[in-house]
Order: sequence, then structure tokens, then C-alpha cells
Amino acid sequence: MTTLELLRARKSVRAYTPVPVEPEKKRALLEAALEAPTAGNMTLYTILDITDAALKARLSETCDHQPFIAEAPVVLVFCADYSRWFSLFRSDCAQTRAPGAGDLMLACCDALIAAQNAATAAEALGLGSCYIGDILENYETHRALLGLPDYCVPAAMLCAGYPASSQKERRKPPRFAVEDVVCENRWQPRDLAAMLARRDGRDAAGFSRWLKAFRERKWDSDFSREMTRSVEAMLQAWNHPPET
Amino acid sequence: MTTLELLRARKSVRAYTPVPVEPEKKRALLEAALEAPTAGNMTLYTILDITDAALKARLSETCDHQPFIAEAPVVLVFCADYSRWFSLFRSDCAQTRAPGAGDLMLACCDALIAAQNAATAAEALGLGSCYIGDILENYETHRALLGLPDYCVPAAMLCAGYPASSQKERRKPPRFAVEDVVCENRWQPRDLAAMLARRDGRDAAGFSRWLKAFRERKWDSDFSREMTRSVEAMLQAWNHPPET
Repeated sequence: MTTLELLRARKSVRAYTPVPVEPEKKRALLEAALEAPTAGNMTLYTILDITDAALKARLSETCDHQPFIAEAPVVLVFCADYSRWFSLFRSDCAQTRAPGAGDLMLACCDALIAAQNAATAAEALGLGSCYIGDILENYETHRALLGLPDYCVPAAMLCAGYPASSQKERRKPPRFAVEDVVCENRWQPRDLAAMLARRDGRDAAGFSRWLKAFRERKWDSDFSREMTRSVEAMLQAWNHPPET
Repeated sequence: MTTLELLRARKSVRAYTPVPVEPEKKRALLEAALEAPTAGNMTLYTILDITDAALKARLSETCDHQPFIAEAPVVLVFCADYSRWFSLFRSDCAQTRAPGAGDLMLACCDALIAAQNAATAAEALGLGSCYIGDILENYETHRALLGLPDYCVPAAMLCAGYPASSQKERRKPPRFAVEDVVCENRWQPRDLAAMLARRDGRDAAGFSRWLKAFRERKWDSDFSREMTRSVEAMLQAWNHPPET
């Protein structure tokens, strides 16, 4: 399979066989993450390899109660991490500036780029993987559970393992067309209802029912409100003046 | 070349031959981006395909004065974009909640995951590519230049083209070791100076000179301060109550 075919075929896998992932495969996956491009070659992230069963079980609760996380052979948390670099810069110059929101965002970019290399490598190694956006929730709890210092916040979580046979047979959810998501030069409005009709083929009544349920589940929902509260807490902690 | 080899070999390329990128290759790259995992299969981003030479030239100035951007055959801006979904949710329920920082962060994750698929696809297609983190700067200018609506902000820029021969021969900058960046279960402090000594092989005096220059260029610098100002402006605009 070529790399382009692999990127096309890759779908999220949320159920794994109990077969452990070989240590050399996990290492290959981590090495692929580290080979990703990173701003100024600074590697503005730390990867937490969650091997402790009790910690996996706890994260499966704090990340919107998804039991499959506790069963995943590989659980990686990609943290945007400026703590190492800020300490080094301050050792060079005591009056150096404090980290700000731009540094947080740049480090998040680094973390996600690396995470996607890990997801692609997992696929190449015959593993299935799934992102857990809910790692953005419950910042204070995750900070304590994972022992995170200042200027280090969770940006992405990736679970991986050998796909259960039910997952292998599952059809990849269809994507929007290039014409729907790409604009030339300047942003242009697009009709999302029409995009969804083309993508999912629901009739008007079915779409209306689906939209209400989807909005209630993905937007006007507890986890979704919690995500914003938690990210605001991350930003506040990040902007707190450094200890001297 | 296998996908793992490709991920290992891929390095940033900032100089391109003048040969245009074939439309079918650009399309393959965009299709690979769209196949990336996305939260709730919502595709929380818009990709701007910058084809206008004057706009490329302007972005090469606003993104920390990097002339190579103006010469890049492909310039893509990945915007975190909740505008489509928020409009649709509001059409379904006028009292729906407003977007918040958590939604912005989740959409940025989506945008970066898609961007890294594009970078990997570029490599598979024989193209070189380079991220421009500076697209996080000058938010107000980029918003006007790119015609961005509320709840849509630039998250990443990727340039691509056929690599100039000088770039093909350039050695990929070495990365940190897995042991330096991966922690088991909980975050652990690491000695970044020692990591850099292992990675780059400078002696103590050379390291000291390098660190001062690097800090002044990457941290205590105008572009770096501007990035935080700009991302704070993005966050403020995002948190502004929606127009009714």
C-alpha cells in the first residue's frame, strides 16, 4: 500500500484485540512522531506513554467516560510543553519574557503535528488508532494526574492497538468533498446543510432529526461546555506569571 | 519507500524549483488532508489555497518577512473554522451556546491533523514542504486579507513545491531521542541543555553562545512577542458574543 493509499484508508479504530503492542512497534511509532516537523526544531511537546492500568482507567473516566480508553494497549498523551525551553531561556537571561498565548498555540501545533505522524505510523504498523479530543477537558484533574508543570498542557490523546475484527469491517465515515472545504485565496461561505446532504444522503425530515440530536450531543452538551471551561483554565494557568 | 521510511526522511524544504505543481498533485494533497481524522467527523477547518501572486507576496511579508513564501508554488492556509457549524446549530436552535476557547482549540487540532496529512502526502508526491508558524501573527491583517468570518482563525500555513537541488542535499536537522521526549505515565523533568548537547554536539562555550543567539532570535524577538499579541486577539475575537 502506498502512503497516499494508507492516508486514504486510515479510519479511527476504537476497539482493540487484547494482543499487546510489541515494544519495538511502540518505539517505531514514537520515533515517527519525533521525526515530524517542529517549530525551530525545538520539539515543543512531551509525550506521556500511559502504561499504568489504573491511570488508563482514570483517564477513561475523565475523558467523557469512554471505557475503550482503559482497554487500549497504547495510550499516548501529547502535551504542548514550553517548560523545558522557558527554564533554559531563563537560565540564560533572568529578565527574559514570560510565555504567552502565542507560545501555547505554537506548542499545540507542534504536538498535533507529531501526534498525526504517530497516527500515520500506527496505520503503517498494522495498528488502529483513535484521537480523544476530551483530553482538553478537566485540565486541573489531568494536570494533577499527569504531574504537569507550568507551561505544559495536554493537547491531544491517541489510543492504539490491533483492531478488533468488527472495526476492520466498519466502513470509514465519508468525508466532505475538496470543493466543500477548500477556498481559493479568500474564505467563502459554504452551505453546510447541503454539504451534509451530499455527504450523508439524508432527506429533509431525517436531516432535521439528525441535526437536533447531533447538536445536543456535540455542542449543547456537558462535555462540550466543560472543554471550553477547561481550555480557559489552561490559558489562565499559562498566563500566570512564572515563579521566581 | 515505506510510509515509516518516508516519515523518517521527510524534512522541511524552503526552496523550490519554478516548476508548477500539477493540479492533480495538488488535489491529491488536499484529498489526503480531508481524509485525516476529525472530531465528530465535523471537519472543523477550511483550507485556503493561495494562488494569487500578490496575496502570496503579502503573506510573505506578514509572516515574518520570508521571501520564499512568495515563490512557493503551493501555499495553503489551514484555518480552524467553527463558523459553518455554529451557523447551522443556531439555525436549529436560536438559544444555542456561543463558541468558546475549547471549540477554538478543538478546531485547531482538526486543522493541524489535516495539515500534517497534507505534508506527508506532499512528501509521497515528490514535493518538499514547510510549515510557517508565523501565520499565527498579525491576526487582524490576516483576517482582512483572507476574508475570515467570526469563529475562523488561521492555525497553520504549509508551503510546497518541487525541492531545489540545494534542499535535496541538505541534511535533516537531528531530532531529540525518544528517551528525551517521552515520559512513562507522569511528566518528568529533563535536562534540555544535556539533550541539546547530545543532539547537536556543541561544547560548553559554543553552547553558551548558541543559546544566547537562539533565545534572542526565537524568544526575545519581535515576531515571538507579536505571536502572543495576535493569538490573544484571536481569542478575544472568538469570545466576542455572536451577532444576532
